[in-house]
Amino acid sequence: MATTMRTFVMRGIGEVGMAEKPIPDPGPNDAVVKTTAALICTSDCHTVGGAIGDRCNLTLGHEAVGVVAKLGSEVKGFKEGDRVAVNAITPCYRCENCLRGFSSQCGGMLGGWKFANVKDGNLAEYFHVNDAQANLAPVPAGLTVEEACYCCDMLSTGFAAAENAAVPIGGTVAVFAQGPVGMMATVGARLVGAGQVIVVESVVKRQAMARLFGADVVVDHTQQDPVEAILTLTRGRGVDAAIEALGGPRTFEACVRVTRPGGTISNVGYHGSGNYVPLPRDGWGVGMGDKTIRTALCPGGAERMSRLFRLIESGRVDPTPMTTHRFPFAQTGDAFRLMQTKGDGILKPLILF
Amino acid sequence: MATTMRTFVMRGIGEVGMAEKPIPDPGPNDAVVKTTAALICTSDCHTVGGAIGDRCNLTLGHEAVGVVAKLGSEVKGFKEGDRVAVNAITPCYRCENCLRGFSSQCGGMLGGWKFANVKDGNLAEYFHVNDAQANLAPVPAGLTVEEACYCCDMLSTGFAAAENAAVPIGGTVAVFAQGPVGMMATVGARLVGAGQVIVVESVVKRQAMARLFGADVVVDHTQQDPVEAILTLTRGRGVDAAIEALGGPRTFEACVRVTRPGGTISNVGYHGSGNYVPLPRDGWGVGMGDKTIRTALCPGGAERMSRLFRLIESGRVDPTPMTTHRFPFAQTGDAFRLMQTKGDGILKPLILF
Amino acid sequence: MATTMRTFVMRGIGEVGMAEKPIPDPGPNDAVVKTTAALICTSDCHTVGGAIGDRCNLTLGHEAVGVVAKLGSEVKGFKEGDRVAVNAITPCYRCENCLRGFSSQCGGMLGGWKFANVKDGNLAEYFHVNDAQANLAPVPAGLTVEEACYCCDMLSTGFAAAENAAVPIGGTVAVFAQGPVGMMATVGARLVGAGQVIVVESVVKRQAMARLFGADVVVDHTQQDPVEAILTLTRGRGVDAAIEALGGPRTFEACVRVTRPGGTISNVGYHGSGNYVPLPRDGWGVGMGDKTIRTALCPGGAERMSRLFRLIESGRVDPTPMTTHRFPFAQTGDAFRLMQTKGDGILKPLILF
Amino acid sequence: MATTMRTFVMRGIGEVGMAEKPIPDPGPNDAVVKTTAALICTSDCHTVGGAIGDRCNLTLGHEAVGVVAKLGSEVKGFKEGDRVAVNAITPCYRCENCLRGFSSQCGGMLGGWKFANVKDGNLAEYFHVNDAQANLAPVPAGLTVEEACYCCDMLSTGFAAAENAAVPIGGTVAVFAQGPVGMMATVGARLVGAGQVIVVESVVKRQAMARLFGADVVVDHTQQDPVEAILTLTRGRGVDAAIEALGGPRTFEACVRVTRPGGTISNVGYHGSGNYVPLPRDGWGVGMGDKTIRTALCPGGAERMSRLFRLIESGRVDPTPMTTHRFPFAQTGDAFRLMQTKGDGILKPLILF
Repeated sequence: MATTMRTFVMRGIGEVGMAEKPIPDPGPNDAVVKTTAALICTSDCHTVGGAIGDRCNLTLGHEAVGVVAKLGSEVKGFKEGDRVAVNAITPCYRCENCLRGFSSQCGGMLGGWKFANVKDGNLAEYFHVNDAQANLAPVPAGLTVEEACYCCDMLSTGFAAAENAAVPIGGTVAVFAQGPVGMMATVGARLVGAGQVIVVESVVKRQAMARLFGADVVVDHTQQDPVEAILTLTRGRGVDAAIEALGGPRTFEACVRVTRPGGTISNVGYHGSGNYVPLPRDGWGVGMGDKTIRTALCPGGAERMSRLFRLIESGRVDPTPMTTHRFPFAQTGDAFRLMQTKGDGILKPLILF
Repeated sequence: MATTMRTFVMRGIGEVGMAEKPIPDPGPNDAVVKTTAALICTSDCHTVGGAIGDRCNLTLGHEAVGVVAKLGSEVKGFKEGDRVAVNAITPCYRCENCLRGFSSQCGGMLGGWKFANVKDGNLAEYFHVNDAQANLAPVPAGLTVEEACYCCDMLSTGFAAAENAAVPIGGTVAVFAQGPVGMMATVGARLVGAGQVIVVESVVKRQAMARLFGADVVVDHTQQDPVEAILTLTRGRGVDAAIEALGGPRTFEACVRVTRPGGTISNVGYHGSGNYVPLPRDGWGVGMGDKTIRTALCPGGAERMSRLFRLIESGRVDPTPMTTHRFPFAQTGDAFRLMQTKGDGILKPLILF
Repeated sequence: MATTMRTFVMRGIGEVGMAEKPIPDPGPNDAVVKTTAALICTSDCHTVGGAIGDRCNLTLGHEAVGVVAKLGSEVKGFKEGDRVAVNAITPCYRCENCLRGFSSQCGGMLGGWKFANVKDGNLAEYFHVNDAQANLAPVPAGLTVEEACYCCDMLSTGFAAAENAAVPIGGTVAVFAQGPVGMMATVGARLVGAGQVIVVESVVKRQAMARLFGADVVVDHTQQDPVEAILTLTRGRGVDAAIEALGGPRTFEACVRVTRPGGTISNVGYHGSGNYVPLPRDGWGVGMGDKTIRTALCPGGAERMSRLFRLIESGRVDPTPMTTHRFPFAQTGDAFRLMQTKGDGILKPLILF
Repeated sequence: MATTMRTFVMRGIGEVGMAEKPIPDPGPNDAVVKTTAALICTSDCHTVGGAIGDRCNLTLGHEAVGVVAKLGSEVKGFKEGDRVAVNAITPCYRCENCLRGFSSQCGGMLGGWKFANVKDGNLAEYFHVNDAQANLAPVPAGLTVEEACYCCDMLSTGFAAAENAAVPIGGTVAVFAQGPVGMMATVGARLVGAGQVIVVESVVKRQAMARLFGADVVVDHTQQDPVEAILTLTRGRGVDAAIEALGGPRTFEACVRVTRPGGTISNVGYHGSGNYVPLPRDGWGVGMGDKTIRTALCPGGAERMSRLFRLIESGRVDPTPMTTHRFPFAQTGDAFRLMQTKGDGILKPLILF
């Protein structure tokens, strides 16, 4: 076995490229996975843009599948060569926040997010998996690597938005923005029983994808005020839940306004700028309107991954239409540039190793 | 029986006084109650100040007990002379929002709030009770009218703040502001199992009352930064839940900041001004910190009232230390002025008829 | 308008037939509906068999749609001629149990069940609706009377079984028995996000219907032990939730056994005989296995009905394949006999007025 | 350091005694604790009686505190000499059931229960702690070893019964049996907001203790039928929740009968015999009465332990009145015999090392 590997790294703010690094070694609770496929996420573009500060030669990527290459002594039930996927979030499951049931906040706020944040990510020939017993998810034989890869973040995050939305069976849901996470929130809203899913999106191709993924109505916010449109569609009532899948002040405010009293604003967008996110006082019922605001950061863990795999296996969802582009690992730089510019109608590029 | 009665009204913005009005008649589902005792709430001061727009000769008051004077034909199980309390919020229990389980939002946002808002309140010799079957709460023999009166708003609202806070048993709670509702939120936090209740208050007399009502620690925000103080008290973790019992942007922001990831901000303060309530982006985990924001508007209904009565009967809470002043109904104007100025250390004035 | 009407009644235990009765008059909170379509439910057969004691000339039926014929003075927002459906359960929404959120237990255990139990049902040309404000559900223009009729009990009850089952997204569900309620539980299990739905049923035609309604796997309990089969299908884990849609001791016991620790047994079957329902001590984890047992009685109310209607309107479910037979009202006796004998592969007979 | 230690073991069914064993060594994720104090639990008596089959030289005990003696390489944040308590249940927190949130069912039904079941317990001079990162609970300086010891099982289990009971604020709770767990369930019921706690117990001394721990009413089931008594006390309504803290068919049946529709039966008793636990068909509303049945097995983990410690530190509960006897470790045999016979009014014997 080689001792070094190629990785795709953030060299510093605004700069990416290939780098040679040692293949990692696992501690007793860890594993090392040989990557077979990965996806690139817009959040890596934010990171390279400086959203979480500078990083020097940090390997990017947090959506990947592969085969077990090395196993720590304490990791049971796996063997080398097993096909596995690893969620973008890799909690320890033993710290205080994990024991409280908030594993995405492992060790501290947002602390479950380790890949391409506080440790090397998995746009690399090999990657290290901490706390592997809980974080290695065996991929069922019936699933392709591409399908499994979508469970690492897109399905887990998008569905979490819907699960947090507390939709009553047959209720109404508005999803703001139809990027890949928003699309999976649309699928998720249907999966949790929504009777009407309204999406807000202006890009024609994404509108079509949203319909494919189950949107009942598409509102183009460049053509009409989305708050008014949604209130009209719900005969003045507002929706039972609004999902914020963009991370912007205007969409957040609109979410609060279109949600009926007693409803839920489920935020899954990463709010990247500004000191404050504006909570409209009147739309929020001056603090007494029974509108609940919840948030999510991609829930991880092998158990959840197994349920996401099952939803693909049993045909409830097929995320692969989101794969607009495919690249060999050597051309990850090209894929990354497309994601940065959102050129060529790109949604998700699949990287094959 | 007389046909007219004296009432204490808002004549217009900034103006109050006594007025003579006809004693109301009940429709089939209504009742008319002869008032025996009432409390004055700061929210009536806001109303007179113009917070919800102008009102002409609207009877004020929403915390009252009395005896049944007249009953509509469809109201069963009551008879004239029965001692009853009526919650500040009087939902219909049959509209869409009521059936959804959000009766404080009856008919529309904040729509359960009818007294001294969209109908005459109960600072009057008699008052009308809509949907009396659900809204008349029989007062047990063991309760004084004063005790019962506190259940109409102070206990119901303050406890709702604690119930919404999702406190794990033995968890930590911070309550911002110790007015009467904040004090009852302090009691409520203990009642729902908090292991440590930290209150933020600067008025010495209120600090002492807070301790009486179960606060473990008092933070004086004029002496130290409350966010820092609470983080220190919780060894950097933050609290499991923060209760906003004031309705201001600074306390709201502080609530978000002191709440740990996965915790709950339970808002019960009425936010009276500004276009936006500021949600601090970083303290909120950039929209991914699993901090939930909930709100409450005094939950009503006879069934809840019966549980609040039981808590007083069984000695779990005695709210009467909050009665700092007593007035006969004829002097309601004096009581009201004290409430407007918060003079003479007033917390709650009891009005006796 | 005529003053009498034809009704289909239980004359006494084991005896049914047509009877002439006065058209009812509404009190202030009531309505009278002119029936246009109805369904017959097996529970009426139980009633005629004596399951709830004797009844003399009680009109049968609790699944019906029609048009408003008469309105009480206090019922707002409706007018004569409006097309409405009325849920099988008609709570008052103002008693203690209703205010607690358990409206099916209105006034006492199972007390929301009034039609064909404590008041005349709706296999009649007209029927009386108590507490009409909450119980009259306007039928959207896009729905047929047949579709609307299925919401009165079949969808509401079957979906309640799934809602109570606390299925994690992508989780596994077993549904025991595929009568009409079981079939709707199958649909409901998918609607709330199940990744695998296993049904237990031996009647070939019902197995096929179950597949049509979304069952992933069908287990024939006459061919194999359903507990073993389900444990094998779930690789020894058991299911996240088991739904009991029959009401028998063997199916109940099997539900407990196939449910994994931490899972839910959701009972919706009416247990008609025996002093005790057997809870298997070992399968229940000797009282410490974290298996939750919940039950449901058809949740009512116009708000829920509007969500059920929406699920049909938006194409999430089409219950009408369950209509195996159609009869004019005059031939209700023939329909009823078929339901009693389950002859001719009957599932649901639609009665047209 | 010595290499062997004294332990108190089950030699076989019905036989106990002291035995010499090697001091265990920790694996990378484990710790070894030097015991300072322990309690004996009735469940160990059941074990010795054969309830879970034969065991040969298994060390008994699952309630203990001590100091860290040895630490595995992967256990962070602790050092030798740290004072720690370890819950009776020691889950791995990384298996499928743990990740689902049911850590007491770690690895399989009841699988979190390892001490004195599938591994040596802690009635020994040293004991081994698996998955120590999550299972070692640092004992605050303000707590005595005796106080801390009660958190390992008595508080955790008793409070879990109350947490599972879904008591509305001010609601009513009945607790059947006032052994140590039942007493802590009584405390727990008050901690979660019950307005009236009714306990069923016939032993006079336990009745007095129950009152000390917050029981409002004591029903002696040898003097009156407890079901009738509780229905009378609740004016026919039944209680919001009934807690089964004995593990017997009669108490379980009574729990179902006294629980009002929509209420919860919270089982925490270990049902030790019989094939079936009898669920009364009529009292259960023939499967449609909205009565929920839940169970618990002592929830573990350091995070929960820290909340239990806090409740003692802040004076919410003092469990030490339950310590009726004290013994040096050498006399554990005497203590055990008293627990088997329930002689001398014993509740809990504290073993000091």
